[in-house]
Amino acid sequence: MATTEYAKGLEGVIAGESTICKIDGEKGKLYHFGYSIEDLVHHSSYEEVTYLLLYGELPNKTQLEDFTAKMRKSRNLAEPIIDMIWNFPADAHPMELLQSVISYLSGYVEHKIHHSATCNCRNTLHQVAQLASVVAAYKRSKEGKEYVPPRDDLSHGANFLYMMRGEEPDAEEGAIMDKCLILHAEHGFNASTFTARVVASTMSTCYCSISAAVGALYGSLHGGANEKVLQMVEEIGDVSNVEPWLEKALAEKRKVMGMGHRVYRAKDPRSFVMEEFLQTLSAKYGDERYYAVLKKLETEFRARMEEKGKPIYPNVDFFSGSVYTLMGIPTILFTPIFALARSAGWLAHILEQRVDNRIFRPKSLYTGSDAREFVPIEKR
Amino acid sequence: MATTEYAKGLEGVIAGESTICKIDGEKGKLYHFGYSIEDLVHHSSYEEVTYLLLYGELPNKTQLEDFTAKMRKSRNLAEPIIDMIWNFPADAHPMELLQSVISYLSGYVEHKIHHSATCNCRNTLHQVAQLASVVAAYKRSKEGKEYVPPRDDLSHGANFLYMMRGEEPDAEEGAIMDKCLILHAEHGFNASTFTARVVASTMSTCYCSISAAVGALYGSLHGGANEKVLQMVEEIGDVSNVEPWLEKALAEKRKVMGMGHRVYRAKDPRSFVMEEFLQTLSAKYGDERYYAVLKKLETEFRARMEEKGKPIYPNVDFFSGSVYTLMGIPTILFTPIFALARSAGWLAHILEQRVDNRIFRPKSLYTGSDAREFVPIEKR
Repeated sequence: MATTEYAKGLEGVIAGESTICKIDGEKGKLYHFGYSIEDLVHHSSYEEVTYLLLYGELPNKTQLEDFTAKMRKSRNLAEPIIDMIWNFPADAHPMELLQSVISYLSGYVEHKIHHSATCNCRNTLHQVAQLASVVAAYKRSKEGKEYVPPRDDLSHGANFLYMMRGEEPDAEEGAIMDKCLILHAEHGFNASTFTARVVASTMSTCYCSISAAVGALYGSLHGGANEKVLQMVEEIGDVSNVEPWLEKALAEKRKVMGMGHRVYRAKDPRSFVMEEFLQTLSAKYGDERYYAVLKKLETEFRARMEEKGKPIYPNVDFFSGSVYTLMGIPTILFTPIFALARSAGWLAHILEQRVDNRIFRPKSLYTGSDAREFVPIEKR
Repeated sequence: MATTEYAKGLEGVIAGESTICKIDGEKGKLYHFGYSIEDLVHHSSYEEVTYLLLYGELPNKTQLEDFTAKMRKSRNLAEPIIDMIWNFPADAHPMELLQSVISYLSGYVEHKIHHSATCNCRNTLHQVAQLASVVAAYKRSKEGKEYVPPRDDLSHGANFLYMMRGEEPDAEEGAIMDKCLILHAEHGFNASTFTARVVASTMSTCYCSISAAVGALYGSLHGGANEKVLQMVEEIGDVSNVEPWLEKALAEKRKVMGMGHRVYRAKDPRSFVMEEFLQTLSAKYGDERYYAVLKKLETEFRARMEEKGKPIYPNVDFFSGSVYTLMGIPTILFTPIFALARSAGWLAHILEQRVDNRIFRPKSLYTGSDAREFVPIEKR
């Protein structure tokens, strides 16, 4: 390339090596350290997947018990963090709060080995464990309800629902929530993970790096797609409206949210699992509306696109918003839940970045004016 | 390049275009929108330079008055922010606090046009104005002293000293502080500015983007160099120790801090100005120790390196730590001051990124294991 040519958004540019996540877009497969997402979601807990992401291997029984205990002990929030949540303005977005809290937390944990490649983040784990507590406490604070301290006998997902509701979820719901977190735990390089690695490359702390990643995920081009799917479902309203809605949307060249993915050329493996969860919860609560609308929309849209020779498939966001809605989770928490789940993946990338680090410092192309003479203010 | 080759840390890779900052490393010149740093530091205020960075042109008299008034009105901190400062653990670093506060602030300002290219950040400006207040209030809180509300009849630099000390600085000190902020306001692409642009590229808010940049600046490979220069000066202690210290350092291949720069092949233009400030303050306070040590060190080290055909020059950090120390600013605030000054430049880059945006989403090279079979935990 000539020295003035460059790839906008670094598209197609390799920014680093990674052993964490492999996506086979053609076959619709996703692996973490070689293990398929289907195996992980069906046989593991979020805690076990977090262990895998941080250590690169599945734990044995003792390792898993120790790790799980450590992570569960890190769930509780300090008083000043609860104050921050309560003082947070009502009309502001919880992603801003999450970004803020996670770097504030850095001061609240024993984290003295920061600024080095061998930091103790695998052991402290507060940044992964407490994000869920912050999101749960945030929801309650907006309803004027007091903080519910965590329990250590519940899975990460079940405890999140418990801290949010103040009531223990039934086993099925708790398991589905935990598996939703597994599905979102990691997904390779993307803007937020890249942000985490760039910040980590300066030898900043894990907390500060994860905080920055939350800021990136907050952007409307990154997180937030499942919110838009849900808005679409609400707009369609009933399964009988799917076809006319779709005809209109296609005529107006509107995007069908939750369909298609930059990497996958097949159905996103996570969306198969999310679809099962939505079917389970729809039957459980006797509310088939969301699933009926989405399934019809998927079928009709895919058929039309296949006719045009442009096959398209649902991604993970297609069903997830409806799953959360059926569990009583408000839309504003969808992106924060994405963040709390992804914190495990971010941390994995931060640790990996540190092992063979070079600070991210690309060049820019100067396209501005030549040197100009300073004009005193009286003469402007 | 083959598809498996890449530049570690994106070194030498162009990541975007920019009209903001031009560095002529050979000649040792620095320009913002075409204006030399010498002109800006001698003829402008930090507020005027902030205007230039955000609008690309110097303001006329009315524009500057309006802009300055707006920025000064944004200085005061809300009660919950002051609580966050007071509650921040004593042994934690104020950069973590700063990163936290700036995204928390996002909820405290009218900022409803976020997630769009045409956000109103040029008008709100809280993120630039309030960082100084946070740093000043942080210092006082650590001394058990109450928050000093800002004044709107002082420059940005003088008001910072006022809020930190609770006493108005004399005109000369106030002016030097303001000019120190000008010198650090902007310096092209680097890890923190790149971070700000990556986060902004997702259409996240200015606040969240600046918060992320603070996280990157906190890293020991990025901010913090002037802290290390000061430690070196303290270690040397007296001008009579410079030569033996230097001989020993060279023999041990220790780095002489504050000398040399990735981009400049001449004396950093900002270090000339910092040197003047240090001379002025040394005379003012009758404390020549810092300047004597640094000047002797510069002379001796440069002479030795020139002999070896490896000329090296002071960068902006060489004199700045001593300038701050003479103004009674503790070492732990050096990087936070860098951050509060640089917030203007970060905001300029965020606004520029939005104009012709593409989300930063580089690729990674997978170097991990092939697919592996899941082993049930009983068998591990």
